[in-house]
Amino acid sequence: MQFTSEQRLDDGVLEREFTLDEIPGTLWTPGSAQAPLVLMAHNNGLPKAQPRLVARARYTAARGYAVATIDAAGCGDRPRSAADEQARAELRRALHTGEPADEIFESFIGPLVENAVPEWLTTLDALLELPGIGGPVGYSGGWTALGIRLAVVEPRIAAAGFFAGGYVPRAQREEARQVTVPLLFLLQWDDEGNPRQRALDLFDAFGSKEKTLHANPGGHTGTPWFELEDGCRFLDRHLK
Amino acid sequence: MQFTSEQRLDDGVLEREFTLDEIPGTLWTPGSAQAPLVLMAHNNGLPKAQPRLVARARYTAARGYAVATIDAAGCGDRPRSAADEQARAELRRALHTGEPADEIFESFIGPLVENAVPEWLTTLDALLELPGIGGPVGYSGGWTALGIRLAVVEPRIAAAGFFAGGYVPRAQREEARQVTVPLLFLLQWDDEGNPRQRALDLFDAFGSKEKTLHANPGGHTGTPWFELEDGCRFLDRHLK
Repeated sequence: MQFTSEQRLDDGVLEREFTLDEIPGTLWTPGSAQAPLVLMAHNNGLPKAQPRLVARARYTAARGYAVATIDAAGCGDRPRSAADEQARAELRRALHTGEPADEIFESFIGPLVENAVPEWLTTLDALLELPGIGGPVGYSGGWTALGIRLAVVEPRIAAAGFFAGGYVPRAQREEARQVTVPLLFLLQWDDEGNPRQRALDLFDAFGSKEKTLHANPGGHTGTPWFELEDGCRFLDRHLK
Repeated sequence: MQFTSEQRLDDGVLEREFTLDEIPGTLWTPGSAQAPLVLMAHNNGLPKAQPRLVARARYTAARGYAVATIDAAGCGDRPRSAADEQARAELRRALHTGEPADEIFESFIGPLVENAVPEWLTTLDALLELPGIGGPVGYSGGWTALGIRLAVVEPRIAAAGFFAGGYVPRAQREEARQVTVPLLFLLQWDDEGNPRQRALDLFDAFGSKEKTLHANPGGHTGTPWFELEDGCRFLDRHLK
């Protein structure tokens, strides 16, 4: 893991860009000596520099967590293949015309999750070797499908916050039953692109004994600010 | 309003029994000089001395609120008429045999709500005349139907926490759209006696721009402890 740049933010949080082999990532660490690690992935390959992700990461770091994110292959700062470009074009066209996009999502997001998992695990290993960063590990992400997969395969993940605002492939909807860590599941009640009933079914499916649904009115990006606070308190209960 | 007994609890909260005409009530006040008032009604006429209500009231008072509850007519410490006894017997029989109880609930809970509202408003007036108790007023109760009615008719109520675990008469389901104060709506996902879809429909119906649903797995009495804390933070945001 090589750090390529760093800046100290007003609240004492250190924000560092890194690369790990070909994976570009960002790590936010608080001023405190020792911090539990939170993996924060943005939805379905949105770039790690996306402002809402960055704002959430900085807030969480200021609350005493080491927060890390990486770009998925073909996303953000990483080179895109012709196939990546084509898949995105198809998805955009389907969303624009309003035609059913499930199968396109399936063929785009499914492999994206599969390919992202080993990279997140490699990143996790590297991060836990850094001084001042320790377990237990939390997952807090807009990318619910990736979070489900990671929570199933990676026993170091001790708690997870998911956002019900992205397509979850059938494979991850199936394995939701195998997720057993404490969960906070955040739903925007009027998220046009993400059917409410599907999100409620997913909440129902999670195998976790402790799972909490928070739902608020409004569209995809309308999550109220207090959910950020609630999300950190959820992590506090399980990671601190 | 006449205080008939008092005890000082370990955390500095003063717990006082009172009567207001024929209405028996309990008031919990914190050590602090000035406290916003929270009306806390137990579900569908359960007694004010019910241990879960008392625990919630004491916790909330220790967090800096004046908390008050009263017994509804025919409930708790108040005399029961032959009609009260008969209605309860019918309800118990229906719940025991598992026959559809909606119509029995309708005829029992509907008038209970109607009769309780003026008594709560009289109590509210009397409480706000006491030194150290001020507005804005919150409602936090297992008795959602009463809370809906109060939130619609009483503009001093500025925020309300409801528990989706009791029968809400059709009249209150209808007027849920007229509720506009910030809401926290708490649902037990596997509450056998209270259909989940009906609770989700009610959440959907509330007219409030700020409304949040918290759902947790488990039956009627399985609400996790952290929801008590979340409920107080919700009140803090709107009453302090």
